[in-house]
Amino acid sequence: MQKIFNITQMTQKFPSVLLENAVNEFSKLPGIGRKTALRLVLHLLKKTSAEVETFGSAIINLRNNVRFCSVCHNICDGDVCSICANPGRDSSLVCVVENIKEVMAIENTGQFSGLYHVLGGIISPMDGIGPGDLQIGSLVERVKNEEVKEVILALSTTMEGDTTNFYIYRKLSGTDVKISVIARGISVGDEIEYADEITLGRSIINRTIFSDSFKT
Amino acid sequence: MQKIFNITQMTQKFPSVLLENAVNEFSKLPGIGRKTALRLVLHLLKKTSAEVETFGSAIINLRNNVRFCSVCHNICDGDVCSICANPGRDSSLVCVVENIKEVMAIENTGQFSGLYHVLGGIISPMDGIGPGDLQIGSLVERVKNEEVKEVILALSTTMEGDTTNFYIYRKLSGTDVKISVIARGISVGDEIEYADEITLGRSIINRTIFSDSFKT
Repeated sequence: MQKIFNITQMTQKFPSVLLENAVNEFSKLPGIGRKTALRLVLHLLKKTSAEVETFGSAIINLRNNVRFCSVCHNICDGDVCSICANPGRDSSLVCVVENIKEVMAIENTGQFSGLYHVLGGIISPMDGIGPGDLQIGSLVERVKNEEVKEVILALSTTMEGDTTNFYIYRKLSGTDVKISVIARGISVGDEIEYADEITLGRSIINRTIFSDSFKT
Repeated sequence: MQKIFNITQMTQKFPSVLLENAVNEFSKLPGIGRKTALRLVLHLLKKTSAEVETFGSAIINLRNNVRFCSVCHNICDGDVCSICANPGRDSSLVCVVENIKEVMAIENTGQFSGLYHVLGGIISPMDGIGPGDLQIGSLVERVKNEEVKEVILALSTTMEGDTTNFYIYRKLSGTDVKISVIARGISVGDEIEYADEITLGRSIINRTIFSDSFKT
């Protein structure tokens, strides 16, 4: 048993306080344990002083100078993000997403020309996140004050995502805005045989006209 | 094909230059791709400014202020590391290791009371690392000038480790020092059925007296 105990304590003794501090900081990151942290720190130690300073200051700079778009709450460098400031985008369409990662993913499809609204999370009682922690109030304001015709809900297809979708739907029910949700169905490239029943069922109910599938 | 292309380009468009810089810096680390880098950066963005500065400065501080022990080349805060400076350690035993990670691993076993010598790598022509890049010369000097009676080679049991072992063995062959190598055999907890032939063969050739295995 003593041997097993030692293995779990493997990276506990450090020859240097500075090293220990750096490893401690790295291992606070999600998905990075103490062994990975040590490997990353030893990698950085092999770099030049200038390279390591660039690394450290890039992160500090981001945290101190990052700003969020006053309209859609996306990350940006100025007051309004480049998407909201672009006059070529369709301001009557607002796509509601959880986080900026989803904005980047949808932007990369090149299939959406409207604006976004970043909630900053989804309703998740397990994680203590309620509607008040999210940018739902500002979405309602936006729909009331701006010329928004359609709100597209593009949240995760999980219990939490569905709860958030329904909450937003209720909040916007007094307005004239059209509320849509992204299509749920078989992923492109998937085999139908292996699709789960709920997804397959949805894909049959929400089938589209075949000639429409040629459009891009 | 266009869809597949888009997926690989997923995290290429960033809404902020600061964000892009931080993600670029993180993705330079080994084993961290652009998606993981973005996840880590967004995690840091949720932290307070002070926490992020602690993170960044811990790494910059380490790189700028780290020192290596003048005797064994282990990382330390002063001129000589705490192991070399400890009068209770047996200075006639020197354990040769690749890196400081191995020093920490061996220290955690609590089975070694001698000193270390950190090579800083192993001979690896594939990676362009020759004997001149390692602390082999200073090991030879140490053996000649200090009262070293035994050198224990504790390198990886790979082709590169064996090459380095043999190189050190040749370099020290003119001295009176005893050269030993860590035992190779079946790991504690392993089933013999699944052990590879070379390891199993070695474990039979290098069998130990049964009564000796009670000693700790």
